[in-house]
Amino acid sequence: MKKIVVIGGSAAGAKFSAKCKRLMPDSSIQLYTEEDIISYSSCGLPYYIEGLIDDINELIIRTPDDFRKAGIKVYTNHKCTEIIKEKKIVVINNKEIPYDELILATGSTPKILHIKNSNLNNVFTLKNIRDGYFIKEKLKTSKRMVIIGGGYIALELLEAFKANGIEVFMIESKSRIMSDFDPDFSLSLESHILKDGDDFIHIIKNTTVIEILGEKYFEGVLLSNGEKILADFCVLATGVEPNVELAKNAGIKLGKTGAIKVNCKMRTSEPNIWAIGDCTEKHCLITKIPVYAPSGSTANKEGRLCAINVAGGREIFKGVLCSSVTRYFDFTIARVGLTLEKAFEFAEIVDIEPVEATVVKSDRAGYMPKSQEIMVRLVADRRTREILGAQAAGLGDADKRINVIAASINSNLSIDDFINLDLTYAPPYGTPIDSLLECAYKIKKDIDTN
Amino acid sequence: MKKIVVIGGSAAGAKFSAKCKRLMPDSSIQLYTEEDIISYSSCGLPYYIEGLIDDINELIIRTPDDFRKAGIKVYTNHKCTEIIKEKKIVVINNKEIPYDELILATGSTPKILHIKNSNLNNVFTLKNIRDGYFIKEKLKTSKRMVIIGGGYIALELLEAFKANGIEVFMIESKSRIMSDFDPDFSLSLESHILKDGDDFIHIIKNTTVIEILGEKYFEGVLLSNGEKILADFCVLATGVEPNVELAKNAGIKLGKTGAIKVNCKMRTSEPNIWAIGDCTEKHCLITKIPVYAPSGSTANKEGRLCAINVAGGREIFKGVLCSSVTRYFDFTIARVGLTLEKAFEFAEIVDIEPVEATVVKSDRAGYMPKSQEIMVRLVADRRTREILGAQAAGLGDADKRINVIAASINSNLSIDDFINLDLTYAPPYGTPIDSLLECAYKIKKDIDTN
Repeated sequence: MKKIVVIGGSAAGAKFSAKCKRLMPDSSIQLYTEEDIISYSSCGLPYYIEGLIDDINELIIRTPDDFRKAGIKVYTNHKCTEIIKEKKIVVINNKEIPYDELILATGSTPKILHIKNSNLNNVFTLKNIRDGYFIKEKLKTSKRMVIIGGGYIALELLEAFKANGIEVFMIESKSRIMSDFDPDFSLSLESHILKDGDDFIHIIKNTTVIEILGEKYFEGVLLSNGEKILADFCVLATGVEPNVELAKNAGIKLGKTGAIKVNCKMRTSEPNIWAIGDCTEKHCLITKIPVYAPSGSTANKEGRLCAINVAGGREIFKGVLCSSVTRYFDFTIARVGLTLEKAFEFAEIVDIEPVEATVVKSDRAGYMPKSQEIMVRLVADRRTREILGAQAAGLGDADKRINVIAASINSNLSIDDFINLDLTYAPPYGTPIDSLLECAYKIKKDIDTN
Repeated sequence: MKKIVVIGGSAAGAKFSAKCKRLMPDSSIQLYTEEDIISYSSCGLPYYIEGLIDDINELIIRTPDDFRKAGIKVYTNHKCTEIIKEKKIVVINNKEIPYDELILATGSTPKILHIKNSNLNNVFTLKNIRDGYFIKEKLKTSKRMVIIGGGYIALELLEAFKANGIEVFMIESKSRIMSDFDPDFSLSLESHILKDGDDFIHIIKNTTVIEILGEKYFEGVLLSNGEKILADFCVLATGVEPNVELAKNAGIKLGKTGAIKVNCKMRTSEPNIWAIGDCTEKHCLITKIPVYAPSGSTANKEGRLCAINVAGGREIFKGVLCSSVTRYFDFTIARVGLTLEKAFEFAEIVDIEPVEATVVKSDRAGYMPKSQEIMVRLVADRRTREILGAQAAGLGDADKRINVIAASINSNLSIDDFINLDLTYAPPYGTPIDSLLECAYKIKKDIDTN
């Protein structure tokens, strides 16, 4: 009986285990996690905090018992401290556990700021169910809070706190929030957030937190601009980093991004050790360059694919397009592939010639009651005429456009083949010539004339 | 100065003229139409009738005056009766008008039933602004009405009448409404329409209208099942046919579908005569077989492309995927490419082996308040592993999924390349593994094992 040991029970580890057990019913699958629950949707936590989801248990996809019933042994509150790869053993809670195949699904952890007092009470990060629960409890008795960071989770938390009437100070070290979008897209989001001069939201950019104030409990932050902000609590949302210590100590190769290097079958550098999910480095299908792009969706795909390969299959995970979407209430911001800024950075390394077009247009027929404008940008390579990326933002249906481009980039579609794409059209759903096609048309004209 | 004569002023003719004038400012462009307005969105008419659009003028994109200001000569209420191609002359209102290039954008007309009394008062079709206006006026004083047909326009009118409290009898000659979807998709729509035992809607299938009752005014219909239905008015919505008489009489080649045959540059069989929009036959990118697929979106694309080619360009219109979407209130039904039924019909002609997968799943994370189920079907060819088509229906975001498949089919994407497509994911927008990817995964498994 094959002994399969899985370390980590969030998206990737849980998906792997369920799939692997179905494919290899005779195998012994042991899933170990440091946490007290497994298989939950951490992406849903901001919406629980906001109050859109009543019961935090709704975020739990399957319980340890569900897994046990399927014949998978689940050990919560078990920490793996060492991999002795020569003996094919892992050390968990000081016990040696042998494996035939080891699956690392150790995930990621919110980055901690190396500043004074970052470990005070009421300084939160948001990663697991427990964090979500405590932040929600805290906000019930709070009036002012500080978010350190201006990315996806920070934005989602901003919505959650705003919806609950909390005054929020968002501290962003860069010159703009949501900085993996082009500047004008970040700005359009920021303008929307601050429209009507929202007195409850303060976005402070180009500024870092140099000290957290308080003794035992969080009292406020001291900013690099000298300002002091007093508040009830604080959430650190400055991104995540892969949990690689276990792998690193065992001599498993890490990639340039610092995450675990895996091949297209999800194997690590060491025999019989695989890695999946947010602890691994991804391959960018556009640039062919390694990226660190944690994603619940990718984690699920990798979990499934790895299970097939552990069971003897030959599935290949081609890579990612860095697709993402999030929102601030009704305002959606989404992207896939390279922004114009990233395309120009990439042009320093390889011979591409970025060209872009941007169109602001209704997401559906302008005369329909629910029509809303969206701003759409398409980025292409003048040399190959291939689409490199897209961004969309606005109160309208921005997400739909990005997924069309994800499918197009996935097949190296050229601007010329995209330009007359037969997208669905009816007045409640689109315009006769979609803004994506207008962008493509503009790019083609630009390439052909300049 | 080049004399360009355009016959028809709806989507294709209007788009062509505007674009052509920009490309060839020195040309003389004369646009003739039988109607009294040009450049309007006929697709918006059901929503005007419903009451979602207050002013019918909102459906007018550009007025004749807008065109005249751009230097285009517009002649409304002008009927072209003959093309004398040898002399490069058209006869319009009994006057001979010479042309260097002639553009036929004659559009389509609702099919008329060849039954007794189909020309009575209060028997309507819905094609132009005037029709929309009169139907809306009529419904104000009506309680019961009959829709003959069960396709897109019939469905959109059903919503419009239902919203206005009118009792509707929908008479469909086939065994199901929306019959260009697979039977279970049509049925899921029908079940939704009739949910809660809607007493105001009667869908009568497998039944034709054999006589319209009344003397001067419509009084009711006599059905093939012997039933008589008395009502205040009736709309014929049994599809449209291309307006080809002018072309046919001039010896311009028609295609197998009965629409005007054009090459990929929108040229007809005759020199200096082009045709665009709903009067032309389309090329299906999947089957390579001619189809008649009228579409406001395609008309716009063809108008633009034809203008470029008339101006000396070499643009190619590759073809269509027969994408479509419509709705009944919050229920969306959309498709692209081949249904399973059509794939099997096509398999009688060429060597394809249709394989399908169907998934019913939330359109976004199930714990989000607005999540709704959609049914998604993907159809592929077991032999080439290429995607042939998709359908989606439900209260959730079905349209988004279809556009992803449109982009994928457009580039002959295989199931294997589609299966791990990096679609955007966030709980308000999708699920970690989208139903499309689940379908692809099921199809791959089916092909690989059977």
